[in-house]
Amino acid sequence: MTRTTSPGSKTNPGRSFEDFRLGERIAHATPRSLGPGERALYIALTGSRFAVQSSHEFARSIGYASAPFDDLLVFHIVFGRSVPDISLNAVANLGYAEMKFGAAVHDGDSLTASSTVIGLKENSSRETGTVYVRTEGRNQRGETVLSFVRWVMVRKRDKGAPAPAAVVPQLAESSSLDLPSLLPTAIDLAGYDTTLAGSPHLWDDYEPGERIDHLDGMTIEESCHMTATRLYQNTAKVHFNQHAEKDGRFGRRIVYGGHVMSLARTLSFNGLANAFRIAAINAGRHVNPCFAGDTVYAWSEVKAKVELPGRGAGALRLRTIATKDRPCADFPAEGPEILLDLDYTVLMPRR
Amino acid sequence: MTRTTSPGSKTNPGRSFEDFRLGERIAHATPRSLGPGERALYIALTGSRFAVQSSHEFARSIGYASAPFDDLLVFHIVFGRSVPDISLNAVANLGYAEMKFGAAVHDGDSLTASSTVIGLKENSSRETGTVYVRTEGRNQRGETVLSFVRWVMVRKRDKGAPAPAAVVPQLAESSSLDLPSLLPTAIDLAGYDTTLAGSPHLWDDYEPGERIDHLDGMTIEESCHMTATRLYQNTAKVHFNQHAEKDGRFGRRIVYGGHVMSLARTLSFNGLANAFRIAAINAGRHVNPCFAGDTVYAWSEVKAKVELPGRGAGALRLRTIATKDRPCADFPAEGPEILLDLDYTVLMPRR
Amino acid sequence: MTRTTSPGSKTNPGRSFEDFRLGERIAHATPRSLGPGERALYIALTGSRFAVQSSHEFARSIGYASAPFDDLLVFHIVFGRSVPDISLNAVANLGYAEMKFGAAVHDGDSLTASSTVIGLKENSSRETGTVYVRTEGRNQRGETVLSFVRWVMVRKRDKGAPAPAAVVPQLAESSSLDLPSLLPTAIDLAGYDTTLAGSPHLWDDYEPGERIDHLDGMTIEESCHMTATRLYQNTAKVHFNQHAEKDGRFGRRIVYGGHVMSLARTLSFNGLANAFRIAAINAGRHVNPCFAGDTVYAWSEVKAKVELPGRGAGALRLRTIATKDRPCADFPAEGPEILLDLDYTVLMPRR
Repeated sequence: MTRTTSPGSKTNPGRSFEDFRLGERIAHATPRSLGPGERALYIALTGSRFAVQSSHEFARSIGYASAPFDDLLVFHIVFGRSVPDISLNAVANLGYAEMKFGAAVHDGDSLTASSTVIGLKENSSRETGTVYVRTEGRNQRGETVLSFVRWVMVRKRDKGAPAPAAVVPQLAESSSLDLPSLLPTAIDLAGYDTTLAGSPHLWDDYEPGERIDHLDGMTIEESCHMTATRLYQNTAKVHFNQHAEKDGRFGRRIVYGGHVMSLARTLSFNGLANAFRIAAINAGRHVNPCFAGDTVYAWSEVKAKVELPGRGAGALRLRTIATKDRPCADFPAEGPEILLDLDYTVLMPRR
Repeated sequence: MTRTTSPGSKTNPGRSFEDFRLGERIAHATPRSLGPGERALYIALTGSRFAVQSSHEFARSIGYASAPFDDLLVFHIVFGRSVPDISLNAVANLGYAEMKFGAAVHDGDSLTASSTVIGLKENSSRETGTVYVRTEGRNQRGETVLSFVRWVMVRKRDKGAPAPAAVVPQLAESSSLDLPSLLPTAIDLAGYDTTLAGSPHLWDDYEPGERIDHLDGMTIEESCHMTATRLYQNTAKVHFNQHAEKDGRFGRRIVYGGHVMSLARTLSFNGLANAFRIAAINAGRHVNPCFAGDTVYAWSEVKAKVELPGRGAGALRLRTIATKDRPCADFPAEGPEILLDLDYTVLMPRR
Repeated sequence: MTRTTSPGSKTNPGRSFEDFRLGERIAHATPRSLGPGERALYIALTGSRFAVQSSHEFARSIGYASAPFDDLLVFHIVFGRSVPDISLNAVANLGYAEMKFGAAVHDGDSLTASSTVIGLKENSSRETGTVYVRTEGRNQRGETVLSFVRWVMVRKRDKGAPAPAAVVPQLAESSSLDLPSLLPTAIDLAGYDTTLAGSPHLWDDYEPGERIDHLDGMTIEESCHMTATRLYQNTAKVHFNQHAEKDGRFGRRIVYGGHVMSLARTLSFNGLANAFRIAAINAGRHVNPCFAGDTVYAWSEVKAKVELPGRGAGALRLRTIATKDRPCADFPAEGPEILLDLDYTVLMPRR
């Protein structure tokens, strides 16, 4: 007997708008352990130089048991889990909000992720809808390592299908900071060595309104962005399949927007070397698509300063903009060369 | 004194057909330890998502001490050891048979490999011969992690040289399954979580004759296949040297066939997510060469089901075909777009 | 208030010639832990096959606690630390001398680096000057893992600025060998297995004047050299920024010279498989720039043999030349195809 499965019977075709139910909790597949291999690859793919993540000795000097993983690596891993359930068929990644980093992730930790549908709204064309989810990543002890809201535009299978009542969640303009999870009591910044970290400029030295051109540029190759995106087990088809994308919207593969985030953060070392932890991402937009061959530049503006009494650190709210093929000496914020517009909060030691 | 060594005096030019002796055992060089770096790189180069290999926690939940390495990574490492002695001058890799996976390989294990010449047959042209070897990989405790037969066409140094009496080994049509090494008594699939693994479809749900289009495609870049092949310390020249290959048979570098096997297996996750272990490879053919720029697609057919009483798992004998630049909705099996035709057996949990 | 920092106020624009002071010691930023990820990536990026670095079991068989890292990986890491302070604005890397490898580096070690300015000499044009530094890398126990002198040509900010009195250090023609750090008493080469190592040829078998063509070639891709150079956290702009380099001296990115060193050393396995440790680099020149697309070949000449009584090993002083797109059967030493001319000393077991 030769029986042919109908397409999709055992494969995952991705969800259409109709497949999401308000309040539904989706446990994502592919649990993942992180270790020294992910650590080295993240450096090799981005060039990151932040001392806390680069050296176990440095991390121990401020009270970590070992070097934590880069916060954005944790984001990419958690985000990657959610793709097959949430955004495999997404027309667009519309935004992020309320992203808070929790327990630091260390070598040997195993992460899982789940998402809850917190909003649904059919678009006026009736061909697509916006899905809002809160996604959480947890370690093997059940501690939250990351929580964020994102919303994506998803196609409907059937334009005529009835839509649920529109529910759009109220989202905070900035993420609240959960200091105990960001800076457990073991962390003591008195031992923080600014020479080893690469800059004498501490929280006290930055002022709201200050702008910093991060100077350097990094060109993206197909192999580099695909290797990064595979490392995160992110399966979104547009990043990997040139045979299909040659007939797609842009005629070529699109770089995972998270890779641009990582490059912007890495470039920001030159000017923000002591921003040793990302506390929160308040909002983020991938303004224009990025392709292999593009050279990424970045600049940042200090939006606000937040005191975190008694812990030797303060928070800086930053806006970092990444561009393509466009140096940032004049701080460009608009136009087709803008790739990323990110509003996030970092921790930095105080004097 | 300036003395120039004659070519080959201290370098390995590779063996010609005349250099193989029936029954000879060749201990291969370059012992290799595997660890978290190889684990992460394998994911980064293929995008593999099988839960047992991805998460130590998941692996422990079914009785493994930690996540075992992907079976094909073990194959590539053992195969790579054998290249300098067996196939450096191979005109063609003709086939595989009787490939059985043994003891699982874990972080920190160190592998060595050896091959025994089990067949020799001069070809009618007298310019080449076929060499059959049985290759074994062992860990530091001497346990067999992999055993397989392969045969390659090797050039003769001297067409007129006398040939040994032809010996062609009898090869089993399918590999026998050694359940104790595949599933040690510690393994208990009762704890297997299909949600985390990514699919509800278990052994009971598959039927002989069933065909599955794995949907996704992965484009290969020169950097990606070379990095994978170097990771395996596979030194076959055709994969690495564009300066020489520009004047070679295809005018460019050839992708290591094993990389295509890994991509096909990775793509098969979409439809076969619970095939958590490769038990055996019964036969395999690299039907056409693969080059950078090709996009690999794959589909599978269930050839047979084998019960493995008392262990909560069953085996599926699969045929997986990989194509280039050719989606597989209509299950193509012939033509210039076929890259790989693999007959292998996987383990899958039962209800 | 919007305040824009003047360029360079918080970013590192790199030092000009005027910024170096004779005798100054510069502690470099970005401490770095090395582990199984760097180990696997180094193999994946170079294809290295030296047994001592490839297998913990093999390393233990001769007395190491575990496989040490490849000496050139240690060099790249230490060198990478020094780039932002020493050579970010270098017009040219002029040379290396007196490079000695010390304590072996193992998984989990954390390295830091510092440099001392040992010479300064304005060039006759008054537009540039030569800076000589001695750079040292240390592990977390303060042991020296590497020490070397390098000199670079650095631009002056202001042609008219007064120059310091010229001081050019006296550099030894060959690096002294510090046997206790190269071969601690725990190392016993009696257990060295030449079959596993890949060659029967030991120290006794090599003669001064002997030349070896290493036969194989490796083509470099943009992604591969950038990934290697990012792994080393080497931030020299010319390797990464195609947008800037398209208007630069060569119109494209330049491959980090150290990547060519690593490829030449890896290729030299074929003929020098038992050269299990680099003891010293006596001198080195990057003769011509290397670009993506180039295929690297290499050959070596034995310059001298040094006995190391009582330890079962001897030293070979080698000259290894790497070429691009030029096989080395006739041992080319001059011309535009020469990439690297390296004078270094390796250890090899004796009979």
